[in-house]
Amino acid sequence: MLMAIKVVQFGLGPIGLACVKAVCMKSSLELVGAIDIDPKKVDKDVGELLEDRPKVGVTVSSNAEKILKETRPDVVLHTTRSFVPQVFPQLELIVKHKAHVVSSTEELLFPRLKHPELAQRLDQLAQENGVTILGTGVNPGFVMDTLPLVMSSVCTEVRSIRVERFVDASTRRLPLQKKVGAGLDPEEFRRLVGEGKLGHVGMKESVALIAHALQWSLDTIEETIEPVIAEEAHKTPYLEVPEGKVAGIKDVGRGIRNGEEVITLDLRMYVGAKDPHDAIFIDGTPPIRLTITGGVMGDIATAAMLVNSIPRVLEASPGLKTMADLPIPRQLSN
Amino acid sequence: MLMAIKVVQFGLGPIGLACVKAVCMKSSLELVGAIDIDPKKVDKDVGELLEDRPKVGVTVSSNAEKILKETRPDVVLHTTRSFVPQVFPQLELIVKHKAHVVSSTEELLFPRLKHPELAQRLDQLAQENGVTILGTGVNPGFVMDTLPLVMSSVCTEVRSIRVERFVDASTRRLPLQKKVGAGLDPEEFRRLVGEGKLGHVGMKESVALIAHALQWSLDTIEETIEPVIAEEAHKTPYLEVPEGKVAGIKDVGRGIRNGEEVITLDLRMYVGAKDPHDAIFIDGTPPIRLTITGGVMGDIATAAMLVNSIPRVLEASPGLKTMADLPIPRQLSN
Repeated sequence: MLMAIKVVQFGLGPIGLACVKAVCMKSSLELVGAIDIDPKKVDKDVGELLEDRPKVGVTVSSNAEKILKETRPDVVLHTTRSFVPQVFPQLELIVKHKAHVVSSTEELLFPRLKHPELAQRLDQLAQENGVTILGTGVNPGFVMDTLPLVMSSVCTEVRSIRVERFVDASTRRLPLQKKVGAGLDPEEFRRLVGEGKLGHVGMKESVALIAHALQWSLDTIEETIEPVIAEEAHKTPYLEVPEGKVAGIKDVGRGIRNGEEVITLDLRMYVGAKDPHDAIFIDGTPPIRLTITGGVMGDIATAAMLVNSIPRVLEASPGLKTMADLPIPRQLSN
Repeated sequence: MLMAIKVVQFGLGPIGLACVKAVCMKSSLELVGAIDIDPKKVDKDVGELLEDRPKVGVTVSSNAEKILKETRPDVVLHTTRSFVPQVFPQLELIVKHKAHVVSSTEELLFPRLKHPELAQRLDQLAQENGVTILGTGVNPGFVMDTLPLVMSSVCTEVRSIRVERFVDASTRRLPLQKKVGAGLDPEEFRRLVGEGKLGHVGMKESVALIAHALQWSLDTIEETIEPVIAEEAHKTPYLEVPEGKVAGIKDVGRGIRNGEEVITLDLRMYVGAKDPHDAIFIDGTPPIRLTITGGVMGDIATAAMLVNSIPRVLEASPGLKTMADLPIPRQLSN
């Protein structure tokens, strides 16, 4: 019998709670701590925050340092914020306690892109403490970056890569429906985009990871964020979208190489999307045309990828890694 | 400017020649030698064996030892035979010359399955000589093993995996059409299957690799090989298949776990297949339903995977590796 891998869950939002649930399913993992700052969650058994309210035996604490010190986890599943500067102090704390990190922080997919200095410091901290840091998830982390890279492996030549991810936001939770701007006036949508308050975080990082792993030197990475306007009224369990209002978002990342658009990541998340799917088109030799019917479900798949990445991260050499550095991801047996 | 990686091509059949072509496209690779025993190929410039007959400047030799000694390659692309015992002396020779190996030998995808002792010796030889050995390709190597594993990474639970690869053999080369039994009497087909002369080599290895990487302990791995009977007459550029004769093969591998069929790899290669495709179905949480329209083209994709794997193999720790041990495959830039 192998010793179970000790896991602390840092952040108990929807993804974090999905991680807790997945960790509890795995015989090789043991949840030893749970961290969140929300006073409504602190001091509860983490099981009380799950839908079926199992008794987990781990009490939520807002004191990250205390939990890390007392539980000495092998790895921390980190699901708090989207941007590297926001999470840097948390990651530093974890790493100094000599725990590996698997994080859903979107910018951590390829942190060198926007935060080269912080990325270098994280890499150094990780190496000094003999641990590995990985940013992953389903998007960013899989559908629009890792999977197209994997598909490119059967091509002798790749001229361009196009990925579509069309999500019907009406099947997703309220925060996501709000995140995509469902129900807004188009003007308000554009104002919020201008203020950086709407849009998929991680888009440029996905483009950058593909280019990096293919050794493509890009001129620029561009991103455009536009509203998808409702052509008819829609009602979700959470909100209504009248005709002419915003149904959701169209967020497109583009990688330009020698003046040509060689990477196109087209993400549309809106209420009422008719044919939800993920698709990868490689203009290459041979050409590739892949479709995932219905698309890979976001929240649970992100939790799955985080949890399933634990063995890869534990086996890796110390440092800040990307999905392109680690062995192929796969499900961790229950 | 980095030094180019020195490559020897060992075996100049259709896959080997496709490798030569791909190697010549890559600025980071340099073809330094070519080995084949066919007297019709020996002493020719390897370029003369390619369709567009470029001058490559590498003369084919049947003396593997001499070529390895003189050219001191970093890596050998090995595309000779299907079975581990057949290729063991070749692999031993390569490894003793301290070159890494990327091989299309089907059984080498997961050599432990049928040849645990030879696999152990290969692993030891590779470690002693500080090099890495990898068996890969498109099937086995990607569509029916590596790709379903990669897709399982977004699942918290995987109950079963089904892969389809339906190939229209009429679009493929003559040896493949013969390999699938096209044009035979059904009785003759069954006789040849009984003699082990028909069937896709590597099927059980694909099942075994999936199970190994998912940490599934299987009761048994089964394989059934049946003829696909032509319902109407077909004519290919190479041969004719009258109605009622064999159009091709249906080769199914099954992994049984706790009495249940949890892995099903359904390969059909026949003249006149109407909807050629690769597909992966995961009965899991979330479920996955992936289709590659037209399927991944065999020969060129296999050569691509071999060549694209070179950097992964050079970076790996010494030993006998599988696709599940190495970082995600991806195209090597031209």
